[in-house]
Amino acid sequence: MDRYATFAVLAQDLADAVRPLVLRHFRTGLGFEIKADQSPVTIADREAEAAMRRMIEAAYPEHGIFGEEHGVARADAAFVWVLDPIDGTKAFVTGKPLFGTLIALLHEGRPVVGVIDMPALNERWVGVAGQETLYNRQPVRVRSCSGLAGAWLYATSPQMFQGADASAFERLRANCYAAVYGADCYAYGLLSCGWVDLVCEASTQAYDYCALVPVIEGAGGVITDWQGKPLGLGSDGRVLAAGDPALHAAAQRALAG
Amino acid sequence: MDRYATFAVLAQDLADAVRPLVLRHFRTGLGFEIKADQSPVTIADREAEAAMRRMIEAAYPEHGIFGEEHGVARADAAFVWVLDPIDGTKAFVTGKPLFGTLIALLHEGRPVVGVIDMPALNERWVGVAGQETLYNRQPVRVRSCSGLAGAWLYATSPQMFQGADASAFERLRANCYAAVYGADCYAYGLLSCGWVDLVCEASTQAYDYCALVPVIEGAGGVITDWQGKPLGLGSDGRVLAAGDPALHAAAQRALAG
Repeated sequence: MDRYATFAVLAQDLADAVRPLVLRHFRTGLGFEIKADQSPVTIADREAEAAMRRMIEAAYPEHGIFGEEHGVARADAAFVWVLDPIDGTKAFVTGKPLFGTLIALLHEGRPVVGVIDMPALNERWVGVAGQETLYNRQPVRVRSCSGLAGAWLYATSPQMFQGADASAFERLRANCYAAVYGADCYAYGLLSCGWVDLVCEASTQAYDYCALVPVIEGAGGVITDWQGKPLGLGSDGRVLAAGDPALHAAAQRALAG
Repeated sequence: MDRYATFAVLAQDLADAVRPLVLRHFRTGLGFEIKADQSPVTIADREAEAAMRRMIEAAYPEHGIFGEEHGVARADAAFVWVLDPIDGTKAFVTGKPLFGTLIALLHEGRPVVGVIDMPALNERWVGVAGQETLYNRQPVRVRSCSGLAGAWLYATSPQMFQGADASAFERLRANCYAAVYGADCYAYGLLSCGWVDLVCEASTQAYDYCALVPVIEGAGGVITDWQGKPLGLGSDGRVLAAGDPALHAAAQRALAG
């Protein structure tokens, strides 16, 4: 049960270290060359990831690291950290505080530690395989939901669904009670607390979804790709999370059409 | 210049009074009969609006009041308050802190005082006709934007655009640099601070948009309906706000097709 406890401590130390680095660039210089290499979001992203890599390499030099900004090191290690300093860059560059830092540890390809940290909101979810998920140090639990007709669905943006994915998402959305947009990783935190029933996304990367897995599973929820397969480094970027296992199955059927 | 100053003080007193009433019901009882009359959001909405109406009637018994929950009183008065205790009820019921309290004062049909208050984020915008908009007591200013191709656009949800409005919005969105969703009234606050270039919405009510007008205009921005007409109680619920007047005109043309 506690085999990952020391790694979870490091994951939270990483999140603590990242917060000031990210917040230092939030709401500064917005609108100036946001697409250029030296944009606030890029500077914050790179500084924060470099800081995390230094801390991981000091503690566990044999571990692998996969980060959005600085690429892959020791990808074949038994333990691989997957890092996204700023998930929700569109929120970040427009001054909206719903961006998060995502930190995952994979063991033999399976996400076993996940942290969703919200620097500007002072909120944090910590998930560890085999343990209850903690939200601001308190255990949380998903809620049950009797079916799609009563389900509150989150997705970051309709533009993340391309081609056939757009029709699949529309089938799901039309069958849900309501759809809410624009929350990035925060939506999965809300789901783990039992405030939201479903999150459906696409076009995501490993550093976007790996940290979510232990958070959702440790709160009693289900998170897979759209075919119901476990998420790992090789997944296709389609993510479906539900608090209620039966609702997850119903959503999967709606997506399949 | 200062003819509305005392009313602006009352508007902020109203926001202060509403905050604890609204927060008391945030993230409590979510998922339980959220559609029924005694849902947390309905209770919070009604209590908060009733508290504001009592304060307004004690201070200015001759003023009119138009609220989402308790209807209209003295609609033909020279001064009419327009109140929305919880703008962003979908955010509220799913535990997302991006809901706001909107307080407007209309004089002879024109919004002259507007408050956007974010109870869960401890952020507030205050706009008064003829004065600089204040964000957390500091003056703020919109940014310029050279054209749609560089514009960051906000809209709460694609589902707010029905029929021809959906095609119009899609024309606008496709010409913008990026679209971000899910912020309700907060998006207009971000625009007044120069962090966002455009907000385009539809299917809104007077209590959703009246408070936004003095906030946007006092920061140097433009906010009208989709035809460029001033917003008032009789507007059609289509709202277009821009930091840059030339961008507002370009967005209006894109919407018109």
